[in-house]
Amino acid sequence: MISSRQTILRLFQYRKFLARVKASGLVSVYSATLAEASGATAEQVRKDFSRFGLSGNKKAGYKVDDLLGQLDELLGKGKPQKVIIVGAGNLGRALMRYEGFPKEGIEIAALFDNDPLKYNSELQPQIFPVERIYEFAVANKIELGVVAVPYHSAQQVLDLMVLSGIKGVLNFAPIYLKAPKDIYVHNMNVNLELETVAYFVKNRES
Amino acid sequence: MISSRQTILRLFQYRKFLARVKASGLVSVYSATLAEASGATAEQVRKDFSRFGLSGNKKAGYKVDDLLGQLDELLGKGKPQKVIIVGAGNLGRALMRYEGFPKEGIEIAALFDNDPLKYNSELQPQIFPVERIYEFAVANKIELGVVAVPYHSAQQVLDLMVLSGIKGVLNFAPIYLKAPKDIYVHNMNVNLELETVAYFVKNRES
Repeated sequence: MISSRQTILRLFQYRKFLARVKASGLVSVYSATLAEASGATAEQVRKDFSRFGLSGNKKAGYKVDDLLGQLDELLGKGKPQKVIIVGAGNLGRALMRYEGFPKEGIEIAALFDNDPLKYNSELQPQIFPVERIYEFAVANKIELGVVAVPYHSAQQVLDLMVLSGIKGVLNFAPIYLKAPKDIYVHNMNVNLELETVAYFVKNRES
Repeated sequence: MISSRQTILRLFQYRKFLARVKASGLVSVYSATLAEASGATAEQVRKDFSRFGLSGNKKAGYKVDDLLGQLDELLGKGKPQKVIIVGAGNLGRALMRYEGFPKEGIEIAALFDNDPLKYNSELQPQIFPVERIYEFAVANKIELGVVAVPYHSAQQVLDLMVLSGIKGVLNFAPIYLKAPKDIYVHNMNVNLELETVAYFVKNRES
């Protein structure tokens, strides 16, 4: 079964909401509540659940614990996921300290940069020269990478990641990266997204 | 004419690529080149251009200068756009220094935080208490805001932004925000996106 990015993103959204609900002590939720919390319609929630065989009772609601367990299994959570970040500038370092990652089992294994002033083996995670990506990624079986370098070096970094066995990439550089078909790249273009928000604001008013 | 976010995002992508091409001295480009640089198909590029009345010659290619001018007009570039960032943590400060913004005419007017240790009126942009958002946004006619606070205070910040006249928001907090219909909110959920990349990597291999 092939799922779209949007669908999987929604499942992760449900999961995150359920984890918060569970922490608050609630034991069951309705699809309408899940929908409201994720910006989907209740119909969409039920459709997603039936598609992935997530069970519940429409009238009595879904049991939070059950649903969370089913989603964890479906989404393969539980095992920590190791990620490297290439680029130890402001953005790379902000991501390094991002409070949301440890909670979700995402472990930043190391950062890499080409500026010797940024190398730091006392910090946790350590910051290494870019030349060490291959060695590090292979030795630590890293499959996930974040590109947080300026646009002019982003393609080179991606190529190096691919060579090093990385299969999935989150790209923050404002450029479209070319990658082999079996590599999954998702672009997070802060600049373009903010310009697009500005465009819709402007064109709504006029 | 109502355009989807994806379409407008593509136009900004074309524009950014053309600006780089222009800087490199090239005077004309083909739709295939534009397509390759933005991850779209050449057909999609031509469709976008014909939809927005962007003119060119299929055989001789598009004139870079002309096309850039037409896109600038269409996208309303030229006038600087003022943005406030709420949350002066790692992410907020990384965005504050983001090199891409000035180039695109995006001006970070101020940051806001609820931690007095972060207030700073000597820094440029200044960092103010959250209570001053309303006063500042109204006085400076700010219409764009970035939410870079932890998830538990994000909805409160958004409500305050809406009250202060902000119409478009880029949200980095890992939570779905409820906003009135005339407010445009786009979510940049680093966490969920990275988890989604990890999911696709895992499910491609098995």
